[in-house]
Amino acid sequence: MMKVDGKDMRPIWLHEDGQTVQVIDQRRLPHALVVLDLKKVDEVIMAIQEMVVRGAPLIGVTAAYGVFIAALNALGRSDPAAFFNQECDRIKAARPTAINLIWGVERVAAAVNGLDDVSRIETARDEAGRIAEEEAENCRLIGEHGLVIVEDISKQKAGRTVNILTHCNAGWLACIEYGTATAPMYAAFERGVDIHIWVDETRPLNQGARLTAWELGKHGIDHTIVTDNAGGHLMQHGMVDLVIVGTDRTTHTGDVANKIGTYLKALAAHDNQVPFYVALPSSTFDWELKDGLADIPIEERDPDEIRYVQGLYQGQVKKVMISPEASRAANHAFDVTPARLVTGFITERGVCKANQAAIQGLFPEKTGSDNI
Amino acid sequence: MMKVDGKDMRPIWLHEDGQTVQVIDQRRLPHALVVLDLKKVDEVIMAIQEMVVRGAPLIGVTAAYGVFIAALNALGRSDPAAFFNQECDRIKAARPTAINLIWGVERVAAAVNGLDDVSRIETARDEAGRIAEEEAENCRLIGEHGLVIVEDISKQKAGRTVNILTHCNAGWLACIEYGTATAPMYAAFERGVDIHIWVDETRPLNQGARLTAWELGKHGIDHTIVTDNAGGHLMQHGMVDLVIVGTDRTTHTGDVANKIGTYLKALAAHDNQVPFYVALPSSTFDWELKDGLADIPIEERDPDEIRYVQGLYQGQVKKVMISPEASRAANHAFDVTPARLVTGFITERGVCKANQAAIQGLFPEKTGSDNI
Repeated sequence: MMKVDGKDMRPIWLHEDGQTVQVIDQRRLPHALVVLDLKKVDEVIMAIQEMVVRGAPLIGVTAAYGVFIAALNALGRSDPAAFFNQECDRIKAARPTAINLIWGVERVAAAVNGLDDVSRIETARDEAGRIAEEEAENCRLIGEHGLVIVEDISKQKAGRTVNILTHCNAGWLACIEYGTATAPMYAAFERGVDIHIWVDETRPLNQGARLTAWELGKHGIDHTIVTDNAGGHLMQHGMVDLVIVGTDRTTHTGDVANKIGTYLKALAAHDNQVPFYVALPSSTFDWELKDGLADIPIEERDPDEIRYVQGLYQGQVKKVMISPEASRAANHAFDVTPARLVTGFITERGVCKANQAAIQGLFPEKTGSDNI
Repeated sequence: MMKVDGKDMRPIWLHEDGQTVQVIDQRRLPHALVVLDLKKVDEVIMAIQEMVVRGAPLIGVTAAYGVFIAALNALGRSDPAAFFNQECDRIKAARPTAINLIWGVERVAAAVNGLDDVSRIETARDEAGRIAEEEAENCRLIGEHGLVIVEDISKQKAGRTVNILTHCNAGWLACIEYGTATAPMYAAFERGVDIHIWVDETRPLNQGARLTAWELGKHGIDHTIVTDNAGGHLMQHGMVDLVIVGTDRTTHTGDVANKIGTYLKALAAHDNQVPFYVALPSSTFDWELKDGLADIPIEERDPDEIRYVQGLYQGQVKKVMISPEASRAANHAFDVTPARLVTGFITERGVCKANQAAIQGLFPEKTGSDNI
């Protein structure tokens, strides 16, 4: 388990009452550690949309627990099955980009298919819990496979510090444990490999400066926050040995949707021959879409996420307006990094190149629509 | 003259007392328009270091007026000439990257060379004023030459909106009038060309979101603030027709030092066949250095510029801390875009390619050290 001030911690869990899903309110980190109760589907949707929870794997697990909550709340309705299905559809539509959202809902929905209203509840809860455990294990395995890459670089550098750059937060806060992009970092740290992490602050919501820095700091991993502008300069000057990021959706052809700005880092890595890896559990692969740039829907969020910045002022969390009142902003939340810029994928089954054949080599049981 | 709420405005001017240099305190924009008096060299250095004034051309003009202030304050010292020379050296060392700083000091110092203590004052004041007027005229000419590029794109698009992306603030606030990167925008706006500007917010100090958005808004030019992460995505989707940025120092071989993050935008422009222009007066060329990446000194600034963000809260300018208290940050202020990624330079003498022969073709009277 990931530790925060000595205490075991996950970003989501089922309360011992067996009915309440609890989550860390990630909007408040790093300044306050606040837990929210989710008891209604509206609360689940709010938590996903407002980014109380975020990160593809965690969105998937939250959505799975959302199906459990839908099953719970269906009981006693005039048409429980119809209510349940409707609630599942609403959860799936909460945010457009992360494929895990749809995947999580559909997997639990399939598990309860045909069950009566009472059995549906228990089975949904168990299936959501199973997904959570599987994603934790997937991340552990991503850590083991990614560790080999970090250790190789460490050897090439004769044990000198391996500098890893990451964008946004693909840490345990975005998953269940270990994280995706951070899993190789935690694994390397455990084995005593000398690492240092460059943490992109990740505007507009500063998931790097707020969440990744907090996670790494709590775990004792050496890290430095930099602006999103800095990565190219660092790479030009040999200060980055490796880039590892997460992803919200990756086509089975290897195109990577991830937090806006990832594409710029991939370009810089390519221009400076720095290995650029994407870490993901297989739940983040989209087995249908082929052209990431054309086909992955990119969420546009509230422009005020750019115009206002949240932070700590005299012990309280406040938002300040940075721009002129009259200026508008545009807030595209993700971009797509074409497969040609990706060195490889780190998955729970191992590392593979960023192309359709290599991905299917690792996951032969999956077939995209173009393979039928 | 650039207008702010109907009033003529420059970022620096000589007060009618003939002794006080006045500047807009750009740290306070867009939330407050505050004017600071500069009467001592220490105040000039503070203004440059703390970014009361910033932008290569304005740093050059401020430094030139700093020499005038040094001459003024030398009067009555035990060894006025020694004091004057010492103060000039201190001004030159205020910040490392913008070449205009050294250029501005040396040009005024050369103009007063051999003069007595009293004549030195008047000549320095006149030479500083002359530099200011020349830089204003240079920017006007940059606008005329850059306008041709914008008009060409407008014709290719049959008059549809030309979308121009810029990074940081290379506007009139960074210069004297018109700006460098913004000069073609102001010129196009005057001629009725339909333009829209994507304004990179430019972390850490948000010169885009604070200053460029303010300038453009006051002038009535349509613009949208985006995070520094967004430009690649916009270019991938055909939403950027042209990038124009300024520069703090450009080698005579065509390498461009500019605000951190410029290199990432140049990579994205190159990857998407978007023209990438750098606008500069010839005072920003470094006629000595050949290898921008190896030789241009890159300033590292206070990490708290990253950890804290300034903005408006309940009508007052406040700073909030965005990161965990315990996490450190690194604040490299500039990066270098290699000449190979630059489509061309827009100078007061016209547009040229980003290579030594083309630059020297426009400025044949200048010779780099390797040409002697």
